[in-house]
Amino acid sequence: MSRTPNVLWIMADQLRFDYLSCYGHPHLHTPHIDALAKRGVQFDKTYVQSPVCGPSRMSAYTGRYVRSHGATWNGMPLRVGEPTLGDHLRSAGARAVLVGKTHMTADQEGMAWLGIDPASEIGVRVSECGFEAFERDDGLHPDSERQRWSAYDDYLVSLGYKSDNPWEDFANSGLDEDGELMSAWLLKNSRLAANVPEEHSETAYMTNRAIDFMTEAQKDGTPWMCHLSYIKPHWPYIVPAPYHDMYGSEHIVDPIRSDAERTVDHPLLRAYQNARVCKSFSRDHVREHVIPAYMGLIKQLDDNLGRLFAWMDETGLSENTIIAFTSDHGDYMGDHWMGDKDFYHEVAVKVPLIITDPRPQADATRGTRSGELVEMIDLAPTFLNALGGAPKPHILEGRDLTPLLHGTSGFSRRFAISEHDYSSFEMAQELGVRQEDARTVMIHDGRWKYIRCEGFAPVMFDLETDPQELRDIGSSDAPEHVTARAEMECALTTWALQHHTRITATADVLASQHNAAGTGILIGFWDAAEFEEVTGTPFDSFQPIGKPPA
Amino acid sequence: MSRTPNVLWIMADQLRFDYLSCYGHPHLHTPHIDALAKRGVQFDKTYVQSPVCGPSRMSAYTGRYVRSHGATWNGMPLRVGEPTLGDHLRSAGARAVLVGKTHMTADQEGMAWLGIDPASEIGVRVSECGFEAFERDDGLHPDSERQRWSAYDDYLVSLGYKSDNPWEDFANSGLDEDGELMSAWLLKNSRLAANVPEEHSETAYMTNRAIDFMTEAQKDGTPWMCHLSYIKPHWPYIVPAPYHDMYGSEHIVDPIRSDAERTVDHPLLRAYQNARVCKSFSRDHVREHVIPAYMGLIKQLDDNLGRLFAWMDETGLSENTIIAFTSDHGDYMGDHWMGDKDFYHEVAVKVPLIITDPRPQADATRGTRSGELVEMIDLAPTFLNALGGAPKPHILEGRDLTPLLHGTSGFSRRFAISEHDYSSFEMAQELGVRQEDARTVMIHDGRWKYIRCEGFAPVMFDLETDPQELRDIGSSDAPEHVTARAEMECALTTWALQHHTRITATADVLASQHNAAGTGILIGFWDAAEFEEVTGTPFDSFQPIGKPPA
Repeated sequence: MSRTPNVLWIMADQLRFDYLSCYGHPHLHTPHIDALAKRGVQFDKTYVQSPVCGPSRMSAYTGRYVRSHGATWNGMPLRVGEPTLGDHLRSAGARAVLVGKTHMTADQEGMAWLGIDPASEIGVRVSECGFEAFERDDGLHPDSERQRWSAYDDYLVSLGYKSDNPWEDFANSGLDEDGELMSAWLLKNSRLAANVPEEHSETAYMTNRAIDFMTEAQKDGTPWMCHLSYIKPHWPYIVPAPYHDMYGSEHIVDPIRSDAERTVDHPLLRAYQNARVCKSFSRDHVREHVIPAYMGLIKQLDDNLGRLFAWMDETGLSENTIIAFTSDHGDYMGDHWMGDKDFYHEVAVKVPLIITDPRPQADATRGTRSGELVEMIDLAPTFLNALGGAPKPHILEGRDLTPLLHGTSGFSRRFAISEHDYSSFEMAQELGVRQEDARTVMIHDGRWKYIRCEGFAPVMFDLETDPQELRDIGSSDAPEHVTARAEMECALTTWALQHHTRITATADVLASQHNAAGTGILIGFWDAAEFEEVTGTPFDSFQPIGKPPA
Repeated sequence: MSRTPNVLWIMADQLRFDYLSCYGHPHLHTPHIDALAKRGVQFDKTYVQSPVCGPSRMSAYTGRYVRSHGATWNGMPLRVGEPTLGDHLRSAGARAVLVGKTHMTADQEGMAWLGIDPASEIGVRVSECGFEAFERDDGLHPDSERQRWSAYDDYLVSLGYKSDNPWEDFANSGLDEDGELMSAWLLKNSRLAANVPEEHSETAYMTNRAIDFMTEAQKDGTPWMCHLSYIKPHWPYIVPAPYHDMYGSEHIVDPIRSDAERTVDHPLLRAYQNARVCKSFSRDHVREHVIPAYMGLIKQLDDNLGRLFAWMDETGLSENTIIAFTSDHGDYMGDHWMGDKDFYHEVAVKVPLIITDPRPQADATRGTRSGELVEMIDLAPTFLNALGGAPKPHILEGRDLTPLLHGTSGFSRRFAISEHDYSSFEMAQELGVRQEDARTVMIHDGRWKYIRCEGFAPVMFDLETDPQELRDIGSSDAPEHVTARAEMECALTTWALQHHTRITATADVLASQHNAAGTGILIGFWDAAEFEEVTGTPFDSFQPIGKPPA
């Protein structure tokens, strides 16, 4: 076990932390993911750096806050020159390979400025968020901007599924009783079985592709980090048989919401509740239609992971592969009278995280749970460490989780941060908020969750007395709340003013700034005697280069 | 005058705003710079974004705050991919040309990651902070990191000045009465005449090089912005005859300082005062030696600018060239018991700024002064506008000064910001401040100057009642001060949380985020009827690509 381990980083999309049996779901049994937790550490307080796909993933893949990398919303390119986990792993002699979704948009203007051909090896890598793309599939077609056709579409066509858009017409549609095609873009069709058998679905296909990669990688022997990134259970909410009717209304947990939340007088919260998607998921018949499909998609994912883990056991890969399982954000599903994601209640901003480390140093923690505050950006430095890379604290803002995996000291975090840019939401116009001000930021210390809403009163929850987050105390006059808000606001200011872009400050660069005399530059010395007294160096000898003329 | 004007951007280094006669110096007469002010607008409240060369200039050349570009200290490379004024001007069809100093350090690691050859056209441009380098000279040799030898050294050698370091042995040393070479790195030698005649000095040489460039540029006809960037009056403080003995103790203005300042109990201010360079400049004999040389260097600069402006008048260039004159920061010269720069008193962080615009729209403002709060980063958007470029508010954080030049409305700024990273200062270790916490930031609204010092009490001055900044009210209990500090802290938080890195959010990108239906992505629609009711589009037609299978 002295050789470098590989890392398999599995990410589900839009998976709530509480829709797995190891996280307490009463009816959705996920034995394979639960088994992973028994072999590793299950983290109970893991927060994403933005409660939406694009920015959350750009943070995960760079190990940096949204404030730092600047890709604040879906479709916003990650700037050329923003260092990625892939760049760091390659420097450490490891491969960083993508199988699935990243939500990356390439920075064409930045590449043009720097004369980088998007079709070149570096151009492709830059366009794929620093990954070597074994398979790239954002799982949303058609998306006229990002993706018209994928290898998965070719796969379906090769199996005889004929369509201009097989992804939609087969994997993401169903047939009604008259055999008519019904699109899963419409929620009322969520209970239909997808128009493909399970083994041809996106989840099964991407599992197969991960096996293809690992089989190939075994041959070349270079250590690797493989990001297996599933699109599901993200919408369109539809799942193949038999998963489509595995769950019924009796398996649906009650929504986390209160009538009092509907009368909240915070303009931003009210605008969220009035957004169409939130009104839609606040309707019980929508929840009753969608949640069983959502649960089926998760159950199908668990079964596919069981197949994957079994294969890894057979091939011996499990013995030398760190496996991390997580998600990019949650899904409101009608909780708090909201739908989709985009805000900071636990169901949206907290994600499952399980990491199993096969190395003996991790034996002490197997099957344990950690209540430490963890951020998604912590995975990058953790994987870099596992693959033998030197830490890069001036670039990577996450914190290495290895001490928590090995039961040693050295990990600490006081606050988790998450950010959101709602400038492209209709509510920004409705509220008359300028594009550059349409942003919120959450700072959470494990008890107080303080959400600064530019231009509005803050929103705050006390997770100790109100774990369901039903009561906004952002404007409460209670002295304890006033004090807590002041402390959180101060901590937020300190965080905001930290260096987030000082990424060229390598140890070498910082060292070169000391000992000015060594550079031949002297400031404020009166005479040679003073110079020699201060530096202990004869004045005539201080210069590395200059000499008096001959 | 309908053709595009050129821009000549003149920058002196370490020139205090108050060492020019047009800014009120009683003994230092600078008729040529004063004449420029009579032809244009003289700005009385111009603040640099960091009170030290490197970060101040990286802000000037990118139009972005230090927080945004991340090159927080001298020698810290400007990251590859950070857009510069040169990039924007080239997009607008203009040249961005350097003659002199930038203090730029190339990001070698970043170029390597992106496969950019430092010797390629783009590599050279990236290494020169986005400028086309007609002449690059940071005016400090030897500096083993950045510059060993320059074209100016070649020039001196070609004139017969023999040395391994002609810059130092001739331009920056003097001869004592015994004819022995005395280095101007030592302050006691500041009163000697430099070991070259005036016409061979750095200031005269760089003036000639600007004339060389403009002569050449006249032929090709492409609109240009030329950054003429002088190293002087920056140390080493020494000037050729006759300027070396033009000024005596009778011309030295009294230091701005009070005995009370010496008993300040702010740990950071005390550490500054105890720094060797500050103690050095707090000695009267040092001021008496250095200030006459500093004044002589400024007088020499004014005479060379007179020569340059006369030549521009003869050639007709003045008629079509916007001229801006400014500095990258000031010099304490013993004021407030401090030396060099690196903090936020007016003499360090406020700089002179004069802009003459030959266009008739500017006739109304000629010879006027502006009391508006201006930042150095405002020059980039101002020049971009003058040269016909489209505004780039998602990248350029400065504000176009054209309204102030043309006497129209549209310019406003409530706060000026400046930042400083003292992590490489000895006092950081002495104070036990971690490298990442060794930073300060100033926010100034024209009256209150609030300086947040991470880990220490703030420093604050009231420029209305204490224009000389002799009284730190950062810990004062006076209700007015407590209120002002709270307001400034809140404004600072708002500024810090603004988008500083969202540079890929072009208008196109933001537009593409609206109208999700247009991308074929639907979220939260129950059925076709609801879709058609909300969007006014028939459901069957919403997809740009997908169709049901044949």
